[in-house]
Amino acid sequence: MSNDDFTPTERTRIRRLAKRAVWDREAVYGVLDAGLACHVGYVIEGQPYVTPTAYARIGDRVLWHGSSASRMLRQVAQGVPVCFTVSLLDGLVHARSGFHSSFNYRSVMAFGTAEEVTGAAEKTAALEAIVERITPGRWADLRPLNGQELKATKVLSLRLEEVACKIREGGPNDDEEDYALPIWAGEVPIRLVLGEPVEDARLAPGIARPAYLKDVRLG
Amino acid sequence: MSNDDFTPTERTRIRRLAKRAVWDREAVYGVLDAGLACHVGYVIEGQPYVTPTAYARIGDRVLWHGSSASRMLRQVAQGVPVCFTVSLLDGLVHARSGFHSSFNYRSVMAFGTAEEVTGAAEKTAALEAIVERITPGRWADLRPLNGQELKATKVLSLRLEEVACKIREGGPNDDEEDYALPIWAGEVPIRLVLGEPVEDARLAPGIARPAYLKDVRLG
Repeated sequence: MSNDDFTPTERTRIRRLAKRAVWDREAVYGVLDAGLACHVGYVIEGQPYVTPTAYARIGDRVLWHGSSASRMLRQVAQGVPVCFTVSLLDGLVHARSGFHSSFNYRSVMAFGTAEEVTGAAEKTAALEAIVERITPGRWADLRPLNGQELKATKVLSLRLEEVACKIREGGPNDDEEDYALPIWAGEVPIRLVLGEPVEDARLAPGIARPAYLKDVRLG
Repeated sequence: MSNDDFTPTERTRIRRLAKRAVWDREAVYGVLDAGLACHVGYVIEGQPYVTPTAYARIGDRVLWHGSSASRMLRQVAQGVPVCFTVSLLDGLVHARSGFHSSFNYRSVMAFGTAEEVTGAAEKTAALEAIVERITPGRWADLRPLNGQELKATKVLSLRLEEVACKIREGGPNDDEEDYALPIWAGEVPIRLVLGEPVEDARLAPGIARPAYLKDVRLG
């Protein structure tokens, strides 16, 4: 571990399958930079809510956005504890028993208190990062954000400080006596792929499909 | 709506983009039956946790499992409120502005109090459903579950009663004046696909790859 890596806390110490824990900051960033959507957990009057949404990472922060009218964002912007989770499914692990069957995956859980991003420049930078995270090159092509849109959009930010990351890869780990059984075992990789772009029916005439649509970073 | 459909509550009424709300029970089941992993939200001492895990639906319940030693499952088995979320990304929606850019998606959030499934037959049925959900035909091939494994596995169940479901599909919905802009717009579909199965290095001799590996239901 370098000084810059994450340190386990009472909340992030990996109790189950500790061999899958990852504390290296660059490795954790790698998982975050590969996801398309996160799941943000927050609490309103004792009830947990888990909301999927787009996000991006800028330096040591993750940022996500939504409508200023959204309950979730209004709640979280007040400074409540959140759990920010990104999980990527990489494969089906077919063991010889159900007990050892599993997914291959990469997951990150970050705990902390989210802050609202309020400055116009900072908000715009966050929205740009969210667009560029998914389709690098897209932001420059878009009709620029206007003041009303900026006002209608809340941006939240969480510093990556208390973070748990787990990665499982490779084939099954069966009980020793099960290896002799006549059962197929192995791994089936899962990938996200993009289909052929479908152009909008109201596309203005003479607009070519941009080259950057081939560069989308999935998973 | 039929009598059997879900009824909006204070927690599940779709405030944002109400046109995307789905209350039809069969449609909600369709989304749940298409997911591979869920994200379960729960609260320990005011802190939300969001944990990705495998699941299945049996009738009007969703079920998930984990180690009896897991904090999450011990907590949830005590009868605390949970939020059970499944979200499927179906496409990138490239609007002419960042404001209207979006994902196409299907998502379900179910609220309630999870119950622990304790009977051996019910637990086994739940684990079978979780395996078969992902790879129909696999359960019959597996080395049967033993008593120790059953004891080491906790199974939780949530009745689908208070459920919010949203589906977004199709191309962008831009501001009327933006349609004339010389900006490419449209939808890029996203699919989960399976790669070629990688057989375990310790496979017993003469084991053919099962036909059901082609039938995995993704997304």
